[in-house]
Amino acid sequence: MPNASLRTAVLGVSGYTGAELVRLLLEHPRLSTPPLLLGRPEQADSLTLALTSMHPQLSGLPHADELRIIPFDWNLLQREQIDILFLATPHEHAREIAPLALQHGIKVIDLSAAWRLQHDTNRAIYKLTDADPTLAKSLQAEAVYGSPELHGRQIKSARLVANPGCYATSIILALAPLLRSSLIDLSWGIVADAKSGVSGAGKAPTASNQFMYAADNLSAYAVFGHRHTGEILEQLHLETSQLQFTPHLLPIPRGILSTIYVRLNSMGSIKQIQAAFDDFYEDSPLVRVRRSHMLPQIQHVVRTNFCDIGFQLSPDGKKLVIVSCLDNLLKGASSQAVQNMNLMAGFSESEGLL
Amino acid sequence: MPNASLRTAVLGVSGYTGAELVRLLLEHPRLSTPPLLLGRPEQADSLTLALTSMHPQLSGLPHADELRIIPFDWNLLQREQIDILFLATPHEHAREIAPLALQHGIKVIDLSAAWRLQHDTNRAIYKLTDADPTLAKSLQAEAVYGSPELHGRQIKSARLVANPGCYATSIILALAPLLRSSLIDLSWGIVADAKSGVSGAGKAPTASNQFMYAADNLSAYAVFGHRHTGEILEQLHLETSQLQFTPHLLPIPRGILSTIYVRLNSMGSIKQIQAAFDDFYEDSPLVRVRRSHMLPQIQHVVRTNFCDIGFQLSPDGKKLVIVSCLDNLLKGASSQAVQNMNLMAGFSESEGLL
Amino acid sequence: MPNASLRTAVLGVSGYTGAELVRLLLEHPRLSTPPLLLGRPEQADSLTLALTSMHPQLSGLPHADELRIIPFDWNLLQREQIDILFLATPHEHAREIAPLALQHGIKVIDLSAAWRLQHDTNRAIYKLTDADPTLAKSLQAEAVYGSPELHGRQIKSARLVANPGCYATSIILALAPLLRSSLIDLSWGIVADAKSGVSGAGKAPTASNQFMYAADNLSAYAVFGHRHTGEILEQLHLETSQLQFTPHLLPIPRGILSTIYVRLNSMGSIKQIQAAFDDFYEDSPLVRVRRSHMLPQIQHVVRTNFCDIGFQLSPDGKKLVIVSCLDNLLKGASSQAVQNMNLMAGFSESEGLL
Amino acid sequence: MPNASLRTAVLGVSGYTGAELVRLLLEHPRLSTPPLLLGRPEQADSLTLALTSMHPQLSGLPHADELRIIPFDWNLLQREQIDILFLATPHEHAREIAPLALQHGIKVIDLSAAWRLQHDTNRAIYKLTDADPTLAKSLQAEAVYGSPELHGRQIKSARLVANPGCYATSIILALAPLLRSSLIDLSWGIVADAKSGVSGAGKAPTASNQFMYAADNLSAYAVFGHRHTGEILEQLHLETSQLQFTPHLLPIPRGILSTIYVRLNSMGSIKQIQAAFDDFYEDSPLVRVRRSHMLPQIQHVVRTNFCDIGFQLSPDGKKLVIVSCLDNLLKGASSQAVQNMNLMAGFSESEGLL
Repeated sequence: MPNASLRTAVLGVSGYTGAELVRLLLEHPRLSTPPLLLGRPEQADSLTLALTSMHPQLSGLPHADELRIIPFDWNLLQREQIDILFLATPHEHAREIAPLALQHGIKVIDLSAAWRLQHDTNRAIYKLTDADPTLAKSLQAEAVYGSPELHGRQIKSARLVANPGCYATSIILALAPLLRSSLIDLSWGIVADAKSGVSGAGKAPTASNQFMYAADNLSAYAVFGHRHTGEILEQLHLETSQLQFTPHLLPIPRGILSTIYVRLNSMGSIKQIQAAFDDFYEDSPLVRVRRSHMLPQIQHVVRTNFCDIGFQLSPDGKKLVIVSCLDNLLKGASSQAVQNMNLMAGFSESEGLL
Repeated sequence: MPNASLRTAVLGVSGYTGAELVRLLLEHPRLSTPPLLLGRPEQADSLTLALTSMHPQLSGLPHADELRIIPFDWNLLQREQIDILFLATPHEHAREIAPLALQHGIKVIDLSAAWRLQHDTNRAIYKLTDADPTLAKSLQAEAVYGSPELHGRQIKSARLVANPGCYATSIILALAPLLRSSLIDLSWGIVADAKSGVSGAGKAPTASNQFMYAADNLSAYAVFGHRHTGEILEQLHLETSQLQFTPHLLPIPRGILSTIYVRLNSMGSIKQIQAAFDDFYEDSPLVRVRRSHMLPQIQHVVRTNFCDIGFQLSPDGKKLVIVSCLDNLLKGASSQAVQNMNLMAGFSESEGLL
Repeated sequence: MPNASLRTAVLGVSGYTGAELVRLLLEHPRLSTPPLLLGRPEQADSLTLALTSMHPQLSGLPHADELRIIPFDWNLLQREQIDILFLATPHEHAREIAPLALQHGIKVIDLSAAWRLQHDTNRAIYKLTDADPTLAKSLQAEAVYGSPELHGRQIKSARLVANPGCYATSIILALAPLLRSSLIDLSWGIVADAKSGVSGAGKAPTASNQFMYAADNLSAYAVFGHRHTGEILEQLHLETSQLQFTPHLLPIPRGILSTIYVRLNSMGSIKQIQAAFDDFYEDSPLVRVRRSHMLPQIQHVVRTNFCDIGFQLSPDGKKLVIVSCLDNLLKGASSQAVQNMNLMAGFSESEGLL
Repeated sequence: MPNASLRTAVLGVSGYTGAELVRLLLEHPRLSTPPLLLGRPEQADSLTLALTSMHPQLSGLPHADELRIIPFDWNLLQREQIDILFLATPHEHAREIAPLALQHGIKVIDLSAAWRLQHDTNRAIYKLTDADPTLAKSLQAEAVYGSPELHGRQIKSARLVANPGCYATSIILALAPLLRSSLIDLSWGIVADAKSGVSGAGKAPTASNQFMYAADNLSAYAVFGHRHTGEILEQLHLETSQLQFTPHLLPIPRGILSTIYVRLNSMGSIKQIQAAFDDFYEDSPLVRVRRSHMLPQIQHVVRTNFCDIGFQLSPDGKKLVIVSCLDNLLKGASSQAVQNMNLMAGFSESEGLL
């Protein structure tokens, strides 16, 4: 890929992840041209709108005040020689558009859930339909789950990257090193009690993303049925019965903290657990493994591109609590997407992210 | 009014003020029967709903778990011998229903803005229409602005009480004593910089009552054009040019703080200002006049039925800053409505409110 | 006890629980005299202070503006014929004062942790010392853990009631019915992931109760070592290894939500679980058992005296998530203390609390 | 100044502004070496501490994990050939250290208030003492108030820059263009109603920066007596009687919004006001002048280096409301300091800040 002149486009910039993605691309030191900002033709009200009238906080950034959202159009994408198309659009549209992009020779980083799940049963929750099921099946098999810490090598040569879910990222990164080292007693199972800020609920006004619902409150939701469960199971090679995942809505704008409970296969030591994490993330600039005495907390990761991971071991060496934090809009979405772009373009993994 | 057996009904219980009003009526020591809860027939989805499935926080209060929202019906109101109908419904409906209630011999306490304004020009902003303009005009003249501290005597014998707006209450109560005492230099004017929690924006999801809009934020809005301006002008007998009122949206659920700037006609003393407030509110149990060294703050009034007023005088005795606080859902709405009911029923003014 | 003229005193009114306790006692319909407010002589700066200059939000409540904090003095307590002394003071002082109160014929409701724990090993964390160890031992055995839902009968005749901890209350009430019914598989254990608002951290300024620490944040703390663990173990007759309790600091002023994970001994049904809770709390006016489809959330309990309990059962009927909520300053502290007072005085359990 | 190898040091990195300043310097594209981090020898507990154990959020940034806070020492500063010393230390220390730095040939950017005020009467509020009053007087005269938009040229050649206060910046930048254009009727005066997030109150725990004090609250403070008043008066050449400035404490971590009320000398137009702002800030990359229909709000500036300014004109063209927003830790402190450094070093004014 001619990375000296990598050209990007973003479909869907009205939401929170879209805005963060555009900001990261505008500030990216290796991109000499700003991203093309695209809207779906049916969203007439946001088209030809100036970026900064939609997101006033971006005003003043390089190029930001000149950019407008323009109607999506394949001819345009080709004329502009777009290399990578980011999809920050609902999953049903991403399912539809990704195959067409690949046909036009444009690589895709999809921030929706459309291409994350290999098993039809897990994907069923999204009610996706395919115009060409055979093609879709083949692309699904080709799609790489965009977790650079797990699949960095495949991402480098991928055409279609399925950017992970925010909850899923925080839980997968917390567990992968321990599962890889076979430290966890899976017969006891895994309990992941996760808490997310309100931006995770999206921008369209609903009953539960209202200030009066979320402020001064905490509530559990989607107990035994959150959509990210499938991603976690697939990526960590778990059985349904082995994972219990409960999300909660926190009264804060952004940030996820997951408190994860496991039992060890045999009596463990702090040193051993620490080593498992340190080794796994040795070459991962965007994961900060904390020393055992210092647990991650949300304010250390908000507005950063990091996932922080820490843990505490019970005095008897059998029970382990892992705490994992990230900004759901960044490492849980947009900065992970840029990290994937960096890998695909042959840039340094953390280019523009530190 | 046969106050031993006062019977009340509430039209519109789905919103925040409706819920607080119902709570106050359920806990009221002089009401032996719970209020009749009414919905407009066109709001089919909330009808016959249990009160506590709509407002789970009310569960466990006396009668609360038995109550259901039933369709509004004049026959029912008469059969149940309702004495006072509270309207916590949009202003256009309150404008329509109040005359009919009076015709059925039922007194009205209207929490909307429908009947607050005597001048057509001030009322124009609400775009109200009247089926019978002549009757409406006569009822408008009869309607009493429900500020017990200003119009207590008239409220006692009123048939139609227009419960004040939340911003308006905080500003009117802060200024009335000083204007009554002719202490303020009106040639300089009045600057009222007011800040309100998000519940003031209502329960229907909009762009600006979303968590992600309001949290960690502050914004001014409706500069030079807020709808409560007319109430303040009328009640304080001010010219438009004498009042500058700027509301702001605070990132908190409830509470209003108004910071009001005036100049004194002649050099004033703390003692004199304090006396003006103390005298005016001597018999007002729900206004707490603070000593000069202690300014009101929102957390002292939230979830109380009080309006707190304090002030600071400039060292040269010429400039006065008045700070006034209240809970917009209580003294700014529902508890003021109950205070009005108390007066109309011959109860003690603060019955059920202390 | 001559409950027609029950007289109360409160030692320690400067904190958040003290303020709420005083408010509840001032508003209590069966107490004809306000509580005596006491400070420890060494806290010279708060003595003879007006209650409402310390807690301006209480101003305007019955008697509140007349009350002052006076130095603690046994003669005074006897002269005023105090029946019940509430201790809202650090645990080391409560350990010291309670025996003396009983010697003076005054019953004690202790809101600190001083008398909650029967086992020395559990109590060790509080580093308590006793002037008269023999007497202390005997009083400890006599002390009743003040959970009215568990020990109502003993509380009625108790002289020394140890009011439960806030986290402990939320977890004990969530589990007691299921453990009583032997539904829980204790070999798997219990995971209690609890989250509390900042008022639980007390009023003395520390690094972690600062706004800049807690706001927009979430952090786990005291993993494997929170002081309330002992209470939960003792009250639920659990082994240390059976309970894993992790508290978190929520960015809200008040409220606790505990998410509790258990496995059932055999495949369970919603009906069965619901019945276990309903039966256990049939006569408990301050516990609201929610129907399975509606999980408790913090905003439904804040500023109420209720503990709300709800649950979700996994589709396979084996895993149960219980969610329990309360206001840590009320049902988690002061209103539970008043509930205990009601039982001790022969009042209705929920008098002044609904 | 040999800007290719500009070397910086920061005295005082434990606070919020210190942390932001270090972050900006670490990310600055023109600084090839990280800043030297210094603590005062008497602050033994923070010395030799790793930067990231004090500020875990900085971990992972370039050089951040290697940096330690080392004891302040002139020899060290000279050995390291420091060009610019940032003082993020209390004003009394900054008053003492700045003269010594200049004697050692090191330029100073002082983030405290020590050198901001030319008039002794205005400076009196800070109770500063000088070892060498004659020298201090001369340095005070030499010191440049570090507002790049007002004094850019002088800053370029300054040895001692007094970085402005946060409130002062927001009010000065909002008014300077209009006063320069003589549009404001100063006989009516200026009312500046300002609101700040809690980080403005500093990091040392106090009663009013506690979560329980600030959350869900709003309070006015220092009415008629805030310390930033002098800066505003001096920079805008106002008489004391012409400015009324009331700060409020907002329940948010960061951000200031100032609502400023003025009257125009003659009937004005939106176009005229807009032009006054646009012209004044034409070459100021860190001030975003908003179009009249879009008022600034705090969430558009938080975590950015911008000051946003907008306005609304009354229908009669006589009253003007100006709204100005900035992040108090950035444009109100640390990024303004870096902006000053850029000017002093001959870099582009916004280098590292966009």
